[in-house]
Amino acid sequence: MAHSAGAFVPGHVTGFFSAHPDDDPTIAGSRGAGVTVDEGVVVRLEPGDGLELNGEPATIEAVDRVLGALRATAHVAVETDLPLGAGFGVSGAAALGTALATNAVFARALSENELVTIAHGAEVQAGTGLGDVVGQARGGFPIRLEPGAPAHGAMDGLPDRRSIEYVNFGELSTAEILTGDTEELTAAGTRALSTLVAEPSVETFMEVSRRFAREADLLTSPVEEAIRAVSEAGGEAAMAMLGETVFALDDGLSAAGYDAERCEVNLTGAHLR
Amino acid sequence: MAHSAGAFVPGHVTGFFSAHPDDDPTIAGSRGAGVTVDEGVVVRLEPGDGLELNGEPATIEAVDRVLGALRATAHVAVETDLPLGAGFGVSGAAALGTALATNAVFARALSENELVTIAHGAEVQAGTGLGDVVGQARGGFPIRLEPGAPAHGAMDGLPDRRSIEYVNFGELSTAEILTGDTEELTAAGTRALSTLVAEPSVETFMEVSRRFAREADLLTSPVEEAIRAVSEAGGEAAMAMLGETVFALDDGLSAAGYDAERCEVNLTGAHLR
Repeated sequence: MAHSAGAFVPGHVTGFFSAHPDDDPTIAGSRGAGVTVDEGVVVRLEPGDGLELNGEPATIEAVDRVLGALRATAHVAVETDLPLGAGFGVSGAAALGTALATNAVFARALSENELVTIAHGAEVQAGTGLGDVVGQARGGFPIRLEPGAPAHGAMDGLPDRRSIEYVNFGELSTAEILTGDTEELTAAGTRALSTLVAEPSVETFMEVSRRFAREADLLTSPVEEAIRAVSEAGGEAAMAMLGETVFALDDGLSAAGYDAERCEVNLTGAHLR
Repeated sequence: MAHSAGAFVPGHVTGFFSAHPDDDPTIAGSRGAGVTVDEGVVVRLEPGDGLELNGEPATIEAVDRVLGALRATAHVAVETDLPLGAGFGVSGAAALGTALATNAVFARALSENELVTIAHGAEVQAGTGLGDVVGQARGGFPIRLEPGAPAHGAMDGLPDRRSIEYVNFGELSTAEILTGDTEELTAAGTRALSTLVAEPSVETFMEVSRRFAREADLLTSPVEEAIRAVSEAGGEAAMAMLGETVFALDDGLSAAGYDAERCEVNLTGAHLR
């Protein structure tokens, strides 16, 4: 048994999605597409107790559920520079990083798919996400063709590398939106996916994501304004699901005058450090 | 249309496999498991003609087939420090790198799964491999649960990171072995996979790979001797399928007195550069 282990999980921004609830949390999930970035979450784990988020005591329900599923009692330190509640999937990343590190420290001998399944199920049951974990496991620009954990879902990806900029204007509650009426949203997400699958490029992804946010009625004023400003400056931007966050390709936001964070598309997916 | 594009594809060593031929090259493939390494193949591609391998004119049938499938006329420069015919899947890597770079240069707007499918089919039709391409696309320690390209196959992985050492004693012809009687080999590979799936750890992978090479009667004298020497020095080694190559975890080969190449497990899978 290793004394401690660390894991890195990339941030994941969903551009559009459709919600597919199910009583079985490994079947529940979302279709849609997003982008993973090399800013992410680092989890360090050792036998013990308690969770720290950026050095402060905290609770992340999905992490507790992962530890419960793996029958492990551990101290979990989660570090991230990503904004919280902003649509980067920090809770899903913490859950997946916890699964990877627990497997290493407590010698559970589980496969990648099994660990992703546990983290995905924990995140669904906590109500904090439907598709971040499977995207974060893959890296790149993940496309969720079919919802759910690896045994049920199906993934593809956009074979491109880009710089990504983002700016955050505040938090949105994933749980509130996911428990509300998602019919309109799911219809818009289904249309977006079928357009992207017909022409799987990053440009199509940005275009259908922009349209999705409008059709699903999720735009806030600062988000709408930033997307328009990037467009007018000749760039491509969209809204992060679910946060009051705008992400853009290359230097789209800074070219439009925003003070934006910049990162690269992540190539690795989640992994032990 | 970009003027040129580059792609990196990791080397992939199969530890054990079972062969699953089919008339449809996207259904044909192998079950088994292997390891990808951060030594790999770099492909640089631009409109033009001809292929160079490490600066010399060469022919790689799988690359020609990829270009044909993508209706592209291109100059392809393939660079690698990996030994050829040694079980690292250099031809599959060249095919997959060509697919990724062609998609970028000729704006084919295909998804990752579509490009992997084209490269896998090209490699199968060329008779030079059955499972390298899908493993190289994923990275890490890929497990091929079901044979074939993404739409048909199913993958998992071992969530571990290790240093890998290897030593090469000569070439083996993949095509010759794959067109011979593979019944015994496939029975041994099937047993190995079921043991690994029950206990998916790197240690199990090395153990079942060693047993597979013996049961499939593929060991040559220098390979058998090196595996035994690593074992006696307390390490873990196995034979690369298909090459006269021994690979070991950590410093297993150098600890046994061999002058071995060292690399790290690849985390990214194939990607544009």
